[in-house]
Amino acid sequence: MPHAAHLFTHSLTVRLRIENRTGMFARIVAAIARAGGDMGGVDLVSAHGQYKVRDLTINARDEAHAERILERVRRVRGVEVLHVSDRVFLLHLGGKIHLGNKIPISTRDAFSMAYLPGVARVCSAIAADREKVYALTIKHNSVAVVSDGSAIAGLGDVGPEGALPALEGKAMLFKEFAGIDAYPISLRTRDTEEIIRTVSFLSTGFGGINLEGISAPRCFEIEERLERDLEIPVFHDNQHATSIVVLAACLNALKVVRRTLRQSRIVVVGAGVAGVAVTKMLLAAGARNIVVCDRGGIINKTRMPELSEIKRWLARNTNADNRGGNLLDATNRADLLISVSSPGGVPARTLSRMGKDAIVMALATPEPEIAPEIAARYATVVATSRSDYPNQISNVLAFPGVFRGALRVRSREINEPMKLAAARAIAECIPARELSAEYIVPSIFNPDVPRRIADAVEAAAYQTNAAKRHGPTAGGDHSPSS
Amino acid sequence: MPHAAHLFTHSLTVRLRIENRTGMFARIVAAIARAGGDMGGVDLVSAHGQYKVRDLTINARDEAHAERILERVRRVRGVEVLHVSDRVFLLHLGGKIHLGNKIPISTRDAFSMAYLPGVARVCSAIAADREKVYALTIKHNSVAVVSDGSAIAGLGDVGPEGALPALEGKAMLFKEFAGIDAYPISLRTRDTEEIIRTVSFLSTGFGGINLEGISAPRCFEIEERLERDLEIPVFHDNQHATSIVVLAACLNALKVVRRTLRQSRIVVVGAGVAGVAVTKMLLAAGARNIVVCDRGGIINKTRMPELSEIKRWLARNTNADNRGGNLLDATNRADLLISVSSPGGVPARTLSRMGKDAIVMALATPEPEIAPEIAARYATVVATSRSDYPNQISNVLAFPGVFRGALRVRSREINEPMKLAAARAIAECIPARELSAEYIVPSIFNPDVPRRIADAVEAAAYQTNAAKRHGPTAGGDHSPSS
Repeated sequence: MPHAAHLFTHSLTVRLRIENRTGMFARIVAAIARAGGDMGGVDLVSAHGQYKVRDLTINARDEAHAERILERVRRVRGVEVLHVSDRVFLLHLGGKIHLGNKIPISTRDAFSMAYLPGVARVCSAIAADREKVYALTIKHNSVAVVSDGSAIAGLGDVGPEGALPALEGKAMLFKEFAGIDAYPISLRTRDTEEIIRTVSFLSTGFGGINLEGISAPRCFEIEERLERDLEIPVFHDNQHATSIVVLAACLNALKVVRRTLRQSRIVVVGAGVAGVAVTKMLLAAGARNIVVCDRGGIINKTRMPELSEIKRWLARNTNADNRGGNLLDATNRADLLISVSSPGGVPARTLSRMGKDAIVMALATPEPEIAPEIAARYATVVATSRSDYPNQISNVLAFPGVFRGALRVRSREINEPMKLAAARAIAECIPARELSAEYIVPSIFNPDVPRRIADAVEAAAYQTNAAKRHGPTAGGDHSPSS
Repeated sequence: MPHAAHLFTHSLTVRLRIENRTGMFARIVAAIARAGGDMGGVDLVSAHGQYKVRDLTINARDEAHAERILERVRRVRGVEVLHVSDRVFLLHLGGKIHLGNKIPISTRDAFSMAYLPGVARVCSAIAADREKVYALTIKHNSVAVVSDGSAIAGLGDVGPEGALPALEGKAMLFKEFAGIDAYPISLRTRDTEEIIRTVSFLSTGFGGINLEGISAPRCFEIEERLERDLEIPVFHDNQHATSIVVLAACLNALKVVRRTLRQSRIVVVGAGVAGVAVTKMLLAAGARNIVVCDRGGIINKTRMPELSEIKRWLARNTNADNRGGNLLDATNRADLLISVSSPGGVPARTLSRMGKDAIVMALATPEPEIAPEIAARYATVVATSRSDYPNQISNVLAFPGVFRGALRVRSREINEPMKLAAARAIAECIPARELSAEYIVPSIFNPDVPRRIADAVEAAAYQTNAAKRHGPTAGGDHSPSS
């Protein structure tokens, strides 16, 4: 991928024994720079006799790059590499989350309240009135982050064990951005029916289910059936968080170029999990002119016989003029292109025929479908999934606030009005006066985002009668007679 | 149940508005005492004008008792009850456990290491070598506490929601006593096959499975099949923790009366989950003379046609002389009686014919099969499940240390030698010079207990080749090339 900025995703700490001579440190720094590395920090470990021992943190692009940097450092005369630690792996040692107790069980009194015999009364109270499980257990604030490891974003099939670090990371984001206790559950099955049954059976203690990285088409049926069967919200992150944030970005990008969603000629590239969800969301938000392209070109009714069930749905519900052709035909005079396919999937010439003030979102990971520098030659607004360019479209903007709002009102679902409310809330986090072509989505670290989403989702849940909790007194009186 | 000591399991905090007159507080204290209540503490909330407002913590035996105490307090002239809070319910509000992150995700650097893009390298490393899941995720220290709510100790069938507070309490004990991250999972199914499949599918992220409160006979097959199918230990607490602690208590009680397990004539009362497990454990530890009684009397080969599968096993493996009769016949000249049946299940006269220096363990909850004061007339050593008598037999003594040891060596199972080692380790926590008829099991708050069990279980896991982890360097080198 030709683009100027480098994303340093690889970070290592190197312990060096350095001869005590003038200019040694400068030589090491120069070696790292020549290899394209970035010095992150330096600590002195010891300095006695003729040697200094230092820890250097070095940022590299990837593993191979890190090896090249190390090779350069090793070649500096008077320097010995004592030890190399990979910061990302070090952080993961032992896992990234842990459980904690609300009170210590260090006395008999605490023991007999939190466990037997005291807990028996609480168990009985819930057995007599199941809704009390929300007030008296962790259910009200707990989300299961469930995957089968078949389609982890940017990685694909890594298996259930391989998915765990990503699920733990997701759980951390739930906690950090919304105070939600999310627990990673990685399933050793790919069978649609087994996944549905397993999630249904284990749902007792959870207030919501966040499905994650389950491949198409199974993810559609799994989500739909669970949503129908369970009394708690089921949300497939790769579909809905993505589509919420894309819609938010579209709403703000359209403000920048002064167009409406209804007027816009929209092309969605990629008819996978995210492409389908984005299309549905845009339709729900009022878009009228969408064509979706897969590897076979524009999806239309003529292609029906060869299409999968979900693509038939797209053929019926988009492309009203039944246009045909390839991506180049699709983008002709288009206003808004949203690509959720794979790196390199949108060649520059496909953008050249787009309309004036075009908007391009190239969202593949880890590299976008087209380099943002090149896209910017054809488009007024460009967005990607990357944090080292403006306008990062990240799921993290959506799911913490959406679940916070849904859990707060004990919602039985996360329905379309709630998702639309979430998208609008994200868009509104940027004041009109600050909005620009390079600032259409708020930062993931903006604490207003989850708070405002939660409020909007809560209101929508009440309006659509999805909320099971009514009024501030629900949860009840916990006197002995309750 | 006639016995002297009272177990105050119910605790409430009462806010009173009290007229500012001399002697008022004494009158309130007297009213509580007359009702048999116990003053736990008192706080002054406000004192102005003619009233004082005070919070009193009062301990009662149960809910009805609490109501009677309140009624007495209400009748004191010049006192108004403003508010009553139940401390146990207050503690449970919102649940008792929570999740935490190892590092805050407050910077881009932390985000990109714990989540994308950094986490992708960790996922790939595990996908390439599944055993790395132990080093790089929470698996190594995580236990699923799984129930279907069908047979929660002392409560019976409270349903999956009703079981949750007990499972959360269990998780707290894992954390407090062994630093283990245990997560409560309460299943909405009673089907043996479904439970087996669900636990198997969700086991990826756990280093062990603690089954809890699943009714017989399903619990036997569920545990057996999961133990066979999974590469991690599966432990049914109600069977194995109970039998480990009972064996530990037996070993020490026999030291007190200077007898051996092999010589002892043993009666087990109750052929449910605990009775079967205790019997198996005693046999494994060397007991040779055991008879088991159920409601139909002594289990023997003559009764085969009417017996369930597990009781047929008992008939084949105990009672070599094929004795018949009722409990009274069974206890004739017996040395050791272990009852795991139900309150009142062992009448006094059944103990009257036991041998010299008899040992009686009456372990039903919440009330023992026979009052300890009465049992003490016939037995030298008496043990119960209650914390307000000497010799409390509690599961909490066993499971934290057993799982600590098993997790530490990545054991694939918790086999019989590991359970025997755990029982001996518990027994050895009491030095010979301190051992007495009233001190045969250590306190649940003795920090030596889980530590010594873990060491013993670890050694037994290595001896029996159950440990997957070999040597202190396993877990590996986490340099970029690992």
